[in-house]
Amino acid sequence: MRVAVLGATGAVGRAMLEILSARVPDVDEVTLLASPTSRGRELSWAGRARTVGAPEAGCFRGCRLALFSAGSGASRDWAPVAAGEGAVVVDNSSAWRMDPQVPLVVPEVNPERIRERPKGIIANPNCSAIQVALPLKALRDAAGLRRVIYATYQSASGAGERGLRALREERDARAGLAANGGRSDGSPFPARLAGNVIPSVGSPVDGGWTEEEDKMRAETRKILDMPRLPIAATCARVPVAVGHSVAVTVEMETPLSAEVAARAIAAQPGACVDARPFGPLALDAAGTDAVHVGRIRLDRDLPNTIHFWVVADNLRKGAALNAVQIAEQVLAEAGSGVSA
Amino acid sequence: MRVAVLGATGAVGRAMLEILSARVPDVDEVTLLASPTSRGRELSWAGRARTVGAPEAGCFRGCRLALFSAGSGASRDWAPVAAGEGAVVVDNSSAWRMDPQVPLVVPEVNPERIRERPKGIIANPNCSAIQVALPLKALRDAAGLRRVIYATYQSASGAGERGLRALREERDARAGLAANGGRSDGSPFPARLAGNVIPSVGSPVDGGWTEEEDKMRAETRKILDMPRLPIAATCARVPVAVGHSVAVTVEMETPLSAEVAARAIAAQPGACVDARPFGPLALDAAGTDAVHVGRIRLDRDLPNTIHFWVVADNLRKGAALNAVQIAEQVLAEAGSGVSA
Repeated sequence: MRVAVLGATGAVGRAMLEILSARVPDVDEVTLLASPTSRGRELSWAGRARTVGAPEAGCFRGCRLALFSAGSGASRDWAPVAAGEGAVVVDNSSAWRMDPQVPLVVPEVNPERIRERPKGIIANPNCSAIQVALPLKALRDAAGLRRVIYATYQSASGAGERGLRALREERDARAGLAANGGRSDGSPFPARLAGNVIPSVGSPVDGGWTEEEDKMRAETRKILDMPRLPIAATCARVPVAVGHSVAVTVEMETPLSAEVAARAIAAQPGACVDARPFGPLALDAAGTDAVHVGRIRLDRDLPNTIHFWVVADNLRKGAALNAVQIAEQVLAEAGSGVSA
Repeated sequence: MRVAVLGATGAVGRAMLEILSARVPDVDEVTLLASPTSRGRELSWAGRARTVGAPEAGCFRGCRLALFSAGSGASRDWAPVAAGEGAVVVDNSSAWRMDPQVPLVVPEVNPERIRERPKGIIANPNCSAIQVALPLKALRDAAGLRRVIYATYQSASGAGERGLRALREERDARAGLAANGGRSDGSPFPARLAGNVIPSVGSPVDGGWTEEEDKMRAETRKILDMPRLPIAATCARVPVAVGHSVAVTVEMETPLSAEVAARAIAAQPGACVDARPFGPLALDAAGTDAVHVGRIRLDRDLPNTIHFWVVADNLRKGAALNAVQIAEQVLAEAGSGVSA
């Protein structure tokens, strides 16, 4: 079975290849595609070097799946082409996420949506939205949700290889880079990230909000199928390589003790509860598949309100792993009569 | 005029000396005191070397003021002694903050409390509580407060010199320190901080909360004189040297546009509004006196709810500067008939 990966040289694309090879043995051939600057590079797959090519008409023929992580522009251009050539597209960009004809899927939360894909495209949610969806599903099912507030602590790799490179250069340069306020040339961030907190992720949108904050609100609503749930996010970038952390406040419909909430979250597939008093750490989550939840505690003043902390590897569960899990479900349909 | 500084060799103590010398020219002599490990060290004051001594009975005699930043134990032991010897104590520890006979003061918020000090002790609030008090006062006066939620991004220096040293050693050691999960020996943090987020500040208390989260709730209430205001904090440590950031969500009594809220905050002495779309940065706040507020925006779903970001230098406005500002007010009483 052949799978195409568009954006194969990026931080998420390489994680996709690694996870695909580890989890989906049926995939025995890959078509590696990337943006113009990365074409011609060689990547290893199944122990053999493969040359990265450019997407072009016909290149998705014979592919059962196409995993995309090359930005919204490339997704808008090539997802319909890939779907037309018979591949099921799992797209990690934001291009199709809010399209009502495209399901937005976290396989442990709303797997039933995978089969409803009239465009042949399934969207992988925003990295931060994926990880919070797991504990929120557990609480929705246990007590109902009335309101959600997020504050994120997002890592450099959320902005891909360029983000990782900027953080590394800024950290290594020490007194260098001074001319630019310590900011690395080519950084995707608006200021130096090393030793700093930047309270903004993505471009500004209306009302002082940012794209990332909008995504966390709109995508959480779509994944949980609660289109009017009040949600407000504050998204910030911190000097961490891999691993997004989120402080979550939830007002529930009915009371729930912290112990019952923790049991509900621990029973949620894909999530685990970290009972250490200092909570789950970004460094511990990096490289793991789970969504780590901790610091679960009831509000002292307001009824039905609970606070907790959520950490996951944004390149794995927040992106590549979730996409491969969707792909696995698509492959599991084979013979069940669902067409791509 | 002579002033005693207890904890003179610490990160906050040294900032106290620097700010005292820059802002209060009437102080022409200092008594430098510290914990046993730092005694005998020499510090420069007004261009001359001074030896750091140990606190002992009689050592505060002749001091108009005593600024304490040597931890709660030292404050509990020595604040009554210093007050008994005639000094007004401005204490930066948590030892006296919640004592009903000790005022807890942010001079731009509740300066009138400074005169009500039956024990001769005035408490300097927790670093994070100080900085959020300024915008909250502006909003309380403009629209009333109904509920507050904090998520903090606190720097290593909030744990003093030991915190700064741990972050520096962890950053510089790279692959070293591996035996200890990358954590520096002698670190005050429960895990490696460099490249990490630790969702816990201070020791655990009841119900899964931490001391720091308790302080932010109790101290905000006392400073604002709103003893039943619902407040919940999530306090986290990030790999930043100096500068605490806080994401704040406030439900107000009455509606306020983001523009009017920004004007109210900008008009608050000690606060400034940073209108850059990416908001105020920890690195920019470090070394400044102001409380920087930005990302001011109205909730999209809930009435009367506003979100914003607050950053300040935790060693200056969050500690030493606020203490010296209290000291200035005490000195301004001279001749006004208020006794220490």
